[in-house]
Formats: sequence, C-alpha cells, structure tokens
Amino acid sequence: MTRRRPLIFSAFNEFVLSHHDHGSWRRADSRQTELNTADAWVDLARLLERGRFDFLFFADVLAPYDIYRGSRDAAIATGMQTPVNDPAVLIPILAHATTDLSFVLTENILQEPPYTFARKMSTLDHLSGGRIAWNIVTSFLPGAGRNLGHDGLPSHEERYGRAEDYVTAVFKLWEASWEDDAVVADRVRGVYADPSKVHTIDHVGPYYTVPGPHLTEPSPQRTPFLFNAAASGTGIGFAGANAEVLFTSGGREQAPASVRQLRAAAVAQGRAASDVKILGGLGVVVGSTEEEARRLDAELRETQTLESILVKFSGFWQEDLDRYPAHATVAEILASTDPGPLLRQVLGSAPDPDADFATFARWAANRHAVGTPEQIADEIDAWQDAGVDGLNLQYLVSPGSFADFVDHVRPVLVDRGTMRADYGSGTARERVTDGGPFLPESHPARRHRAALARRREEDAR
Amino acid sequence: MTRRRPLIFSAFNEFVLSHHDHGSWRRADSRQTELNTADAWVDLARLLERGRFDFLFFADVLAPYDIYRGSRDAAIATGMQTPVNDPAVLIPILAHATTDLSFVLTENILQEPPYTFARKMSTLDHLSGGRIAWNIVTSFLPGAGRNLGHDGLPSHEERYGRAEDYVTAVFKLWEASWEDDAVVADRVRGVYADPSKVHTIDHVGPYYTVPGPHLTEPSPQRTPFLFNAAASGTGIGFAGANAEVLFTSGGREQAPASVRQLRAAAVAQGRAASDVKILGGLGVVVGSTEEEARRLDAELRETQTLESILVKFSGFWQEDLDRYPAHATVAEILASTDPGPLLRQVLGSAPDPDADFATFARWAANRHAVGTPEQIADEIDAWQDAGVDGLNLQYLVSPGSFADFVDHVRPVLVDRGTMRADYGSGTARERVTDGGPFLPESHPARRHRAALARRREEDAR
Repeated sequence: MTRRRPLIFSAFNEFVLSHHDHGSWRRADSRQTELNTADAWVDLARLLERGRFDFLFFADVLAPYDIYRGSRDAAIATGMQTPVNDPAVLIPILAHATTDLSFVLTENILQEPPYTFARKMSTLDHLSGGRIAWNIVTSFLPGAGRNLGHDGLPSHEERYGRAEDYVTAVFKLWEASWEDDAVVADRVRGVYADPSKVHTIDHVGPYYTVPGPHLTEPSPQRTPFLFNAAASGTGIGFAGANAEVLFTSGGREQAPASVRQLRAAAVAQGRAASDVKILGGLGVVVGSTEEEARRLDAELRETQTLESILVKFSGFWQEDLDRYPAHATVAEILASTDPGPLLRQVLGSAPDPDADFATFARWAANRHAVGTPEQIADEIDAWQDAGVDGLNLQYLVSPGSFADFVDHVRPVLVDRGTMRADYGSGTARERVTDGGPFLPESHPARRHRAALARRREEDAR
Repeated sequence: MTRRRPLIFSAFNEFVLSHHDHGSWRRADSRQTELNTADAWVDLARLLERGRFDFLFFADVLAPYDIYRGSRDAAIATGMQTPVNDPAVLIPILAHATTDLSFVLTENILQEPPYTFARKMSTLDHLSGGRIAWNIVTSFLPGAGRNLGHDGLPSHEERYGRAEDYVTAVFKLWEASWEDDAVVADRVRGVYADPSKVHTIDHVGPYYTVPGPHLTEPSPQRTPFLFNAAASGTGIGFAGANAEVLFTSGGREQAPASVRQLRAAAVAQGRAASDVKILGGLGVVVGSTEEEARRLDAELRETQTLESILVKFSGFWQEDLDRYPAHATVAEILASTDPGPLLRQVLGSAPDPDADFATFARWAANRHAVGTPEQIADEIDAWQDAGVDGLNLQYLVSPGSFADFVDHVRPVLVDRGTMRADYGSGTARERVTDGGPFLPESHPARRHRAALARRREEDAR
C-alpha cells in the first residue's frame, strides 16, 4: 500500500455544554458540565496535542437558537449551545498549556470594532507563538444582530459590504502598519521602535474609518491564519478571496462537488487552487470490534433528546421543525409544499423515505462513522479520496470521542500516512501549508504590504 | 504600637513596555522587553501572589500619545505605552497560573458592544473563580475615539450618557437575566437550565438596545468587582454611583481632601461612605540603607529619557510640553499665561520655583518614596492616616520594584498590621470588602435584581 499524504485534523468545538451532541453531557464519562472552568478544557487541549491534532476549533453563536417553537426555551432547557461563553479568553489558557496545538477563534465582523479586534488577534498571536487562526464569520442569527444593536440581521448586501470593509481595515493594521524592522529595542540609545517605520493606515471605508497605527508590534504571523465557513453560494466569493481554510458543505458524498466549487472560488479570485485547504466534517464512534462500536453508538443515542436535535436543526435549516408531526413520513413531507430548501435537501438524501420525522431527525443528527479503528480509517481515506485536505472532527461525547480517536484511530492513520507522526514547527500557517509564517503573496491582503513597500521605496528615492 | 488595619494592595501595570517608568526597560535586570510573551507576566503574577497583593491592575490606552510635538513619534521611539497589547487575553493566563491574586481589566465603554463585553467579563469571572474586576473608563484619548469610528472624542454629555446607558445594560445582563437557581444540570431528565428562570432584559436606552438574555450563566460575582478612576469633578457622580474602588487624585498631601470628595460622591448617590474603597498611588525605591536606596534611585533616573517623560505628561496634562524651553524656570512659566490648568496645578506644587523645566519634569516623574523598608512603611502608614483604604503601586522597574517591595517592605508592613499576613478566601469582592460575592444591596445595579425578584413574586401570585 502506498503511503498517503497527511491530512489536517481539527477538533470541532464551542465554549458550551453541547455543541453537536444532543445530551451526552448526561453520561458519567462526560466532562461537558465542567464548561465554565478551565481544567477540562486544558485536559482536552493536552489530549489533542498528544494526538497531534493541528487545531482546536471554537465555533461561536451570539444568541440562543429560537426558531423551534418560536422560543429560546428549548435551547436553554437542553443546553444546546446555550449558555455560550467567550472563547477569546479561554484560548490563551489553552495556548499557554500547550506548545504545538493551534486554536481557531470564531468572531463575527459585527461583533467589535476592527481596531480593537485586530489588537486582540495580534496579542493572541504573540502569546501563542503564532498558533492562532481567525474563523471569519459574516452572518449570524437575527437575535445576535439585535443584541449587538443592529436592527436584526443586516441585508446580505450590507453584510458583505461590511465584511469586505472590515477585513480590509484589519489586514492593513496587521500587514501595513509596523514594518518588519520597526522594533529595535536599543537599550543604549533608549529607543524601542523607529517611528519612521510605524505607519498610520488611514483607512476610510464605507462602514469603518480607522486611522491607526496598529497598537501592537508585528506578531509571528502578522495576519492570523484565516478560516471561513462559507461553503455555498452565499459568501463564497468572499471566502474564495480571503480564506486559507474552507469547509465542505454536506457529507462525504457531496464533498467532491463542494471541493471543486471552493477551489474554483479561490481561482476566480486570482489564487491557486492549492492556496486553500479544504476540510470536511465528521463525527466518529469507535470500538475495538464493530459490535462494540455499535453498542457505544446505541448508548450515545439513548442520551439524546429529540428536542435538542430539533432546536439545532430548526436553527440550521431556518424553519420551525415543530410543524412536522413526529409520525409524518419523509416521503409525505417531501410531497408537501411545506419544507424550505435546506430541509428539503436533507430530506432528499435520507436513506428511508418511509421513516417518520422523528426517526429522520435522529438520523440527520447521527450521520457519523461507527466502527473499528480500521473502518474509521477507511472512511477517512474515502474523505481524502473525495479531495479534502483535512477533517474537522465533531465529538459525540467529550472528551471520550477525542480520546477514542487519539488512542485507537490515530495509530492506524499514522501507519497509513494519513496523520502526521509528529508536529512540524513554527506558526499555525507554517505547520499546515507549504509557505512561511506570513500570508502568501497570492493572498489579496498582501497588496497592503506591497503598497507600503512601494511607498517606502519612493520615499527613499 | 497598636496594630494597624490591613490596606488593599494593587500592582499598577499595563500590557506595555513602559507604563509609568521612563526607560528602565534598558536595565539588565528588567524583563519589560519580554512584553509580548507570557512568561515574564506569569512570573510577575506569581511574585505578587507570593507577596499577597490583592490586585494586578491593567490600565489601557487605545491610541499612542500624540500631543507632544503634535506627533506619536516620541511615544513610539520611547515605547511609552506604545505598543499596547490587549490585557483581556493575558489575564486568563495569569489567573490560571495563580489561585488568590485578582485582576483588574480596564475597558472603555466605547470599546465594544455591551452584550459581548458582558459575556467576556462573565467568562473571565468564571475562569478566574471570581477574581476579576472591571475598571470602568468613560473617556479617552481623542485618537482612540477616531480609531473606534467616533468622530474624535464624543462630548462630555454624550460620554456620560453613553456610560450610564452602557453600565445599565451590562448590569441587567449580569444581575437580572439568569436567576440563581436557573441551572439545574439534571442528568436524569436531560435538562440543563430552567427556561422560566432565564429572562430577557429588554434594555432600550438612548444609545444601546439589548434584548438579551445574557449568554453566560451566573458567574461567581455576577457583576465583576468595579473600579473607576474618575477622581475629580468630571465623572465623579458616575464614579460615586457605580464604583466600588476609586482612586485619589494628586499625591499624599492632596489625599485627605480627595478621599473626602470621593466618599461624599458615594453618599450623594445614596450609598455609605464605607461602600467605596479608596486607593492612593505610590511608587517606591527600596534599599537596605537610605544610601543604597538613593543610589538605586539615581541609577533608575539615569535610564530615564526626558522625551519619554514629556510624552506622557503632554498626554496627561493635555498640552504640548515642547513649548516650554528646558531652561525656563517653574516661576517664569507660572507667571506666564501659557500653562493650562492641569500643568499649572503641578507647577504650583513643585518644591523649587527656580528649577528649570527639565528638572521640574523629572521631579514630576519621580515623586516616589525612596528609603529603607521602614521608611517606606512609614510613608505607607502616612497614606493610611490620610484616609485611603489601599495603594496602587507603580513600578520604577519591573519586576524589580515589585520584588523589592515583596521581599523587603512587605515583612515590615505585615509586622505593623498594614498588610495582610495571608489571603482571605472567595471572590475579589469578598477578599477586600466586608460583603459577600455579589454587589451589596446599596449598589444601584441591585435594583435590576430586585425588580426581577418583584416580577417573579407577582407571577407566582
């Protein structure tokens, strides 16, 4: 068997009780109820580092899901991504407790001014030695928009206008404010930095005006490694232009088409297809035999509440799933005019058209791989063959899902070459791309740095 | 000698190279150039904890000082509070590396939306086990206002209107959204929280609209312990109403009047004079003999650059000090119409009217206590006799100033009773007040909690 090339592995998480599980916090072996203190998170980060994961990814939402039954009550009752703490102040603890694992912070461009956000990311990049990534989010729940003072969710046009303006401002702060050799720290002359090498950015955009200069000296990566979750029509142009890591939409069957679409989006923006790393999403339940895996899977399903599943999918599919009677079949619902496009798509891929809606919902919430380490490795190989560069691994129970993966699946993957035997060195960007610590020349944000260099050359003449 | 009552001790700092020192980062024993990595800060926090300091206080500014010579250049060259990293992502590391030290985070009310700020503070309160305080800042450098998208510094009226509205919104999120017993974490029923005990706040103010509910479940203190640095006419009403810790203005001579004014401001808002803790500000240079202390002081002065001093004071006194020739005397400048009110006040308290301006500026930058541990303890006793409840200790060099204090001054203070022999337990608030973990009943924010309790009672009838 020829050895495979290593994939990127990210642990998909959120600073919550329940991220994509639906009640496994009730298990005695779960530490999910320890969400508000650092210890369980530190132990998780160290476990992932022992397993040579590249990233611990923190998703985020800024309002409880409230489409199901038109109320937030079920989200609160089931703890489905509610409460949700601030990942930006947990990540520093985890970065300090590890040496090689990198961290992905999700932050919405409507969440805070670009000036202070840029400082926060630069500080995190400094403190983590370059092990920080930003998952750029441009859209969110209408409730979050209201809580941030917007009149609900801004229009699609305004959101992307804001997003372009926002990233331009922060890219300028990161790339074109402090020159590489601005800091001299000359103890003899008492000069810390050369003011002629620290520049205002004088950004004036349609939404944001930021004179600068940046408050922080250049950090290991300058611009943090950039993720973006936009995987479909909406926002894919933005993602193709700006993101270094993208996510497929749908399951493994949809991955080849999704990968093609994402790489094409990068190419359309003047970048190489290989400039973007593409991750699929997968949950796994592992047993030493297939039977043991199925038993664990059944156990996990027993902890799930249907309410938690319907809360999440009502949010994801943007309609109140309470309208569908539990006994209505997939075929019946598909035949009606009721389902919106997102639900219709998932219904269409359901394996059993005669399944009732409750069974369908449970199926949709449990599309993970169940099997022996070898079977899981086969599934991961199949993802790789579908064209992805890596996987974002969901947990079914935490830390158990990750522990099982590290202890049992990882050795098989290392053996096959699909997982790195050891970490590389350097920043997050260097560890998972062929480039250096900074954004590659092909990234549009580099134009700000190039413009600065040109101005400097002209000044020197 | 009767034993004195213990004072509160806070270490005054900022996530910068130079806070109130003026070049001591040049010394071989300084670790100030390690500002961008965590290790020196962790060591400092542990040193302060060994010395039973109550707080490590992080000041903050959101723009380089740019009044001196109408330019930011000197601030950048001397590293005077430039660069300045984000303290909110350093504090979690320090809290995790300690068990008893509390941390004061300075954040301006114009800096981010109240909704996400409230979540950040609640998360920090959770992660630190209740060892977090918020230094509420309502005003800042005009350059910071511009960087945050405001048209310079908003008017005084707008700033305080915003401040009142902002704190009302965050108080409601902290005090009146999640009831104490909302989280049940019932593994059997699969219920994490009782939705009937999690409330929207429906805040509609002149500047901020925040429906809620709060994203985070109740943290150890709910509302973090509250600091405010407003010490004079401007904003003293706001401070008297809201702050639990305040700062005197001026030196020890001005302290009794300042303390009276601050306590009166609290009383005017319906609180007890003892509801506010008042801290003075002091720097110390310690030697085993007075001669040794003077020698260290002279050494420290040698590292200072006049430029760094003028940069800072031009910012503090709000005028470009470059206009005063180095050889002009204090008396000459006072006799002219040039100085603004802030500079005029300091000139008036200068010990030598015939001193030239450079000498005056160096004096103003070095009004710290120099002497043996006993002499420093005498000075601290005198501060206590002036009516303060504690001191915010500036460093002249870091970590040296704090190490000298812990190793040499602290034993004398403990002996006299002026410093606690050991930590109390509980949250930041419990450690330094007579009350419990939450805001006292006399604090205006408690009305939101009381209103919620009333509504609940009415509902129950």
